[in-house]
Amino acid sequence: MMMMIGWMLITASQAQQNANHMQLDIKQHIQRQNIRIPNIEGYQTLKGDFHIHTVFSDGLVWPTVRVKEAWAEGLDVMAITDHIEYLPHKDHLKKDHNSSYELAKGEAEKHNILLIKASEITRSMSPGHLNALFIDDANKLDKKKVEKVFDEVKAQNGLMIWNHPGWKAQQPDTCLIYDIHKKLIKEGRLHGMEVMNHNEWYPVVLQWCIDHQLAVFANSDIHNVNGYVYDLKHAHRPMTLVFATERSFAGVREAIESARTIAWFDNQLAGPQDLLSQLFKASVVLTPSFYKDKKMQYLELRNNSDLPFAFVNETPENGAPEKFRLEPGKTIIVKVKKGTRSFRCTLENCHIGMFQNMQVDLM
Amino acid sequence: MMMMIGWMLITASQAQQNANHMQLDIKQHIQRQNIRIPNIEGYQTLKGDFHIHTVFSDGLVWPTVRVKEAWAEGLDVMAITDHIEYLPHKDHLKKDHNSSYELAKGEAEKHNILLIKASEITRSMSPGHLNALFIDDANKLDKKKVEKVFDEVKAQNGLMIWNHPGWKAQQPDTCLIYDIHKKLIKEGRLHGMEVMNHNEWYPVVLQWCIDHQLAVFANSDIHNVNGYVYDLKHAHRPMTLVFATERSFAGVREAIESARTIAWFDNQLAGPQDLLSQLFKASVVLTPSFYKDKKMQYLELRNNSDLPFAFVNETPENGAPEKFRLEPGKTIIVKVKKGTRSFRCTLENCHIGMFQNMQVDLM
Amino acid sequence: MMMMIGWMLITASQAQQNANHMQLDIKQHIQRQNIRIPNIEGYQTLKGDFHIHTVFSDGLVWPTVRVKEAWAEGLDVMAITDHIEYLPHKDHLKKDHNSSYELAKGEAEKHNILLIKASEITRSMSPGHLNALFIDDANKLDKKKVEKVFDEVKAQNGLMIWNHPGWKAQQPDTCLIYDIHKKLIKEGRLHGMEVMNHNEWYPVVLQWCIDHQLAVFANSDIHNVNGYVYDLKHAHRPMTLVFATERSFAGVREAIESARTIAWFDNQLAGPQDLLSQLFKASVVLTPSFYKDKKMQYLELRNNSDLPFAFVNETPENGAPEKFRLEPGKTIIVKVKKGTRSFRCTLENCHIGMFQNMQVDLM
Amino acid sequence: MMMMIGWMLITASQAQQNANHMQLDIKQHIQRQNIRIPNIEGYQTLKGDFHIHTVFSDGLVWPTVRVKEAWAEGLDVMAITDHIEYLPHKDHLKKDHNSSYELAKGEAEKHNILLIKASEITRSMSPGHLNALFIDDANKLDKKKVEKVFDEVKAQNGLMIWNHPGWKAQQPDTCLIYDIHKKLIKEGRLHGMEVMNHNEWYPVVLQWCIDHQLAVFANSDIHNVNGYVYDLKHAHRPMTLVFATERSFAGVREAIESARTIAWFDNQLAGPQDLLSQLFKASVVLTPSFYKDKKMQYLELRNNSDLPFAFVNETPENGAPEKFRLEPGKTIIVKVKKGTRSFRCTLENCHIGMFQNMQVDLM
Repeated sequence: MMMMIGWMLITASQAQQNANHMQLDIKQHIQRQNIRIPNIEGYQTLKGDFHIHTVFSDGLVWPTVRVKEAWAEGLDVMAITDHIEYLPHKDHLKKDHNSSYELAKGEAEKHNILLIKASEITRSMSPGHLNALFIDDANKLDKKKVEKVFDEVKAQNGLMIWNHPGWKAQQPDTCLIYDIHKKLIKEGRLHGMEVMNHNEWYPVVLQWCIDHQLAVFANSDIHNVNGYVYDLKHAHRPMTLVFATERSFAGVREAIESARTIAWFDNQLAGPQDLLSQLFKASVVLTPSFYKDKKMQYLELRNNSDLPFAFVNETPENGAPEKFRLEPGKTIIVKVKKGTRSFRCTLENCHIGMFQNMQVDLM
Repeated sequence: MMMMIGWMLITASQAQQNANHMQLDIKQHIQRQNIRIPNIEGYQTLKGDFHIHTVFSDGLVWPTVRVKEAWAEGLDVMAITDHIEYLPHKDHLKKDHNSSYELAKGEAEKHNILLIKASEITRSMSPGHLNALFIDDANKLDKKKVEKVFDEVKAQNGLMIWNHPGWKAQQPDTCLIYDIHKKLIKEGRLHGMEVMNHNEWYPVVLQWCIDHQLAVFANSDIHNVNGYVYDLKHAHRPMTLVFATERSFAGVREAIESARTIAWFDNQLAGPQDLLSQLFKASVVLTPSFYKDKKMQYLELRNNSDLPFAFVNETPENGAPEKFRLEPGKTIIVKVKKGTRSFRCTLENCHIGMFQNMQVDLM
Repeated sequence: MMMMIGWMLITASQAQQNANHMQLDIKQHIQRQNIRIPNIEGYQTLKGDFHIHTVFSDGLVWPTVRVKEAWAEGLDVMAITDHIEYLPHKDHLKKDHNSSYELAKGEAEKHNILLIKASEITRSMSPGHLNALFIDDANKLDKKKVEKVFDEVKAQNGLMIWNHPGWKAQQPDTCLIYDIHKKLIKEGRLHGMEVMNHNEWYPVVLQWCIDHQLAVFANSDIHNVNGYVYDLKHAHRPMTLVFATERSFAGVREAIESARTIAWFDNQLAGPQDLLSQLFKASVVLTPSFYKDKKMQYLELRNNSDLPFAFVNETPENGAPEKFRLEPGKTIIVKVKKGTRSFRCTLENCHIGMFQNMQVDLM
Repeated sequence: MMMMIGWMLITASQAQQNANHMQLDIKQHIQRQNIRIPNIEGYQTLKGDFHIHTVFSDGLVWPTVRVKEAWAEGLDVMAITDHIEYLPHKDHLKKDHNSSYELAKGEAEKHNILLIKASEITRSMSPGHLNALFIDDANKLDKKKVEKVFDEVKAQNGLMIWNHPGWKAQQPDTCLIYDIHKKLIKEGRLHGMEVMNHNEWYPVVLQWCIDHQLAVFANSDIHNVNGYVYDLKHAHRPMTLVFATERSFAGVREAIESARTIAWFDNQLAGPQDLLSQLFKASVVLTPSFYKDKKMQYLELRNNSDLPFAFVNETPENGAPEKFRLEPGKTIIVKVKKGTRSFRCTLENCHIGMFQNMQVDLM
């Protein structure tokens, strides 16, 4: 149908006149997608991706592309984190660990995107891979001894997160936390961990973050074109929801240091119960019984967010379905027996601990 | 969908056990799209794009990405044509005009894609921009005098095509052919012209190609990610249909030298009448009257190709619609008065000259 | 996608055991789409379709289907308006003008849809076709003389709207208002007109509604399956936006009597300036200049609604584009020269009179 | 983008002139989808649905809608099978079991669809529900004793198929074949069974059909609007592939009597091995090794059909993936070790018996 209209447009308006130059309206006019996730009491909900690569390490696109992708997909904050120690393109690219940031900076400002200066410290396990965020000079992180790198990050007043702790290449059978990580946590130098990365998720890491009050992250670790890895019309990259007092670098930093984040990827939400519960309440509106027939009363559940919710009815005696879903931006009708008092549900896609799901009361 | 299935079978069995690592099957598993365009008598129909950029000039992706894009979109042959004279990334990239080809070569072989070694000669008008195809060493094209560059192309036994002759930046009000182009044609050193480029099309250039028996081209001139410029689920990049005796470099070269090409973009087809007419006949099946009522007989038009066709009825007294379209992979029913003898149509989207459309007889 | 998941969890456990019965989760689980159109000061924005047919006149679906369509598409209020005088199915259906309403009533209550009892008075021009809304007994409208029918509508305390006044079958060359319509308006018995119907729109009728302070309507006049007529994933049926003090029959009726409606169809909005201007202000958020470079300042326009807006820059000297669009649920960045004082735009798709478009000031 | 174009089209071409009547190009122009399934040696592959309901029993649409649905979805043959014994709409519809066929007949002829006269015999188990196909007068099937109905079907020279034998409402725990069915088979009066119905599939019934050489069927048993039950852009109704000597009633009848059918639904194919194996060979093209690197050779698998194929590698020592899929109209590259002799795969979605999958050799 689009073709049809496109075709009519051309023949109707131009074909008979212009022999020299005709413009076909075939290119996409990309606009920024508003991700509809409500704010919670006292905080703005920012969407972030804190793990992104470019051609300046082993990525496949120019840094400015990363900013446009983040803008189009509705992100507020991002970090380009090219590897310090792994540079497969070095035969063709002049070495400067600050290049990708410098090239993307202007593009970010013009798109109202918060671009955090960062790098990925890339070592074998332990400590594995860590992102240094809010640094000043990535070149100074290019040191032999990793402890010296950590000191440099501290000297630059940077934050650190542990990337993909469950990555099979570095933790083939298990997912262990090592002494060096415990030490960093103890010293307050490790501020978060990725519970979701690219196409993986690690329930045990969620538990570590809850136990140590560290920020959870869902990051893309994108190397290829983002739109080729994820079907952006029906899916989204891993995103870290940051609950910040303000939309600024300081706001993002304070939220991470205070562990006010939720990991969101592929219909799964993972984070602290209090944040998840506020997010659910801000997203879903329950309208009281609008109709009754002989046996049942009818309720309406309206989802004002772009988050899906998957319910398991823990009180099936109330006659409601054992399982039901509420898709983003949709409304469903749920029937329960008249006089029902309790309607407790487990949200299968909301994780508040290792294999622990959040529960909500619908009545 | 089955991919999703695959994942669920895994997580279904893992979800309760695996705290360390779960894989979400959310990534796209891109497979090559078969473009359904029939062969014609004696020739294979190959799909090509002969004008593509990478980070090695002013493009935004790594050369290997271009091969994967071409493979996924169903192309058979491609040329990476980075600018010789325009290198905005030169502060970050080491200068070597052969790099993009060298980096893409292996990827092309593994994807069964014919990658032609090429470069874009980038000058102000005249002569403007020209692609040199089938060259040996791009570095030798980096010369001051453009005539010397043309000589070098000839020395390397390359072919040349004139890019976007109607580009407003170089032909603001008109679209003129200059003496230098006429000279190249006369000497048999210019083998084709782009009648479609990126999102533009130039009817006058089609006429020049017909008059001088040069190959017509529709090329993407892509700089950004292809999937961000075109909506690949509902549209396609400009493609040059090459009618070759065999699927090989020699076959492609001979077809270009023999001007056996058709330009295809955004529902528009442009090229020599004999080729277009063979392509139409090979694509559309007319089934004779399958039903009659009091006044009308019913015909079926079946489109076995991925090409659309837009008909204008030149004999409306036969009772058929004044205009109708036949979409790719679709079938339509057309009613004509009983006893109709003639049913001539103009194909509004099939161009055989400057504002000259191909006609076909449906009965 | 999660539906698919749900199924797989089942078959994963069943596939090896169950030879008797396997359920494939291939059926769509349709949920109600929330149409995101903000309320305006003091009023709820209800979405309505007041012109719908079923098998009980010349429609092709059972009445209950119409309710489920309306629910899925996000409507709040609807009227089934089968023809009184045109019953092509009468050889197969027992004649009772109340049947379609009676059969749909229960379905509407269970879906929280306001179903207005109604019928379409179907005469040649003049008066043409009129819908009687809020009636008690459709059978009593089955009279020979149309004046008697109008009296009966009044006796039943019904409202009347004039359907598709510009329909070519009844107004081949022009679109005239007849004495009978003027008389009805004068007597306060005609409460609205369709400015948009099915796939048509009548600018002159918008002017009549503005001049006589009648409610504007955009109705589907749907006969076939709605999802076969409109591509519901990329388009929507004509809708009448009703600005009501409450979501109730009384609220809808009062809003129509007070002409507080806007017609919405295919990206076009038509209605009184004050309502349209409030709706625009409630939909679009302008964030002040967030960045400046040497020459330009950057503004952000965020669209929180499902309505598109098409801007024409009336002060192009400010350096902003001559034309730009803001798609539903999207955000765009607009550059204007530093120190710009005025940024007036005409909204090409917002009609406040015959060929009169609404203007807005963006600074 | 469609909206954008649509909008430009209108404002560009008409808005300034026509106050009376403007047509918006918003309606879908539905064309028949060509389902790409190859013919096999000596037979045409017809697509059929032999179980369809309308308002004349408990369906929700007018009979003509069923023909247009079948045409748009690419079917060749269909049967409307309204219930004889179950008529919930009888208070509103005049009773005549031939009405739905009579009303659809003309529409079918105009759309080149083979419409088989039929009815559904609707009894409790046993015998449950059976479709009588190729009958003359449905009213004569309205008898008390089911044996008399079977005799009438025979008298009218009709065929019979057993519908949804595994339907839980009639076979809650098991799926049994009863004496009456055995008797019908023995007497050659039962010609097929549904192995797939609506959203169900019954592996045991496939085994019965194989054992008794009966035709397998996949039918929709559609009651609601087809496009509301199945997402027709990404899925399809259950279809019975009929391998007929000609596209005619006689051809279809002979194929059913000879059990030359395959059931196709939701990526699953079920039927006799010889037919499935011919269908696979006609659909998938294997191109021999087109490239070799140090260790591996590269093969290309091209799918020319709209059928998906899900491979399990039974010789994983050849280095190819353990599982891979070939989507409709796609091509994939598979790497196997150099010098590989055998490459046997099980097709997980091709069923030739109860939990028996077809195997194919790719080398």
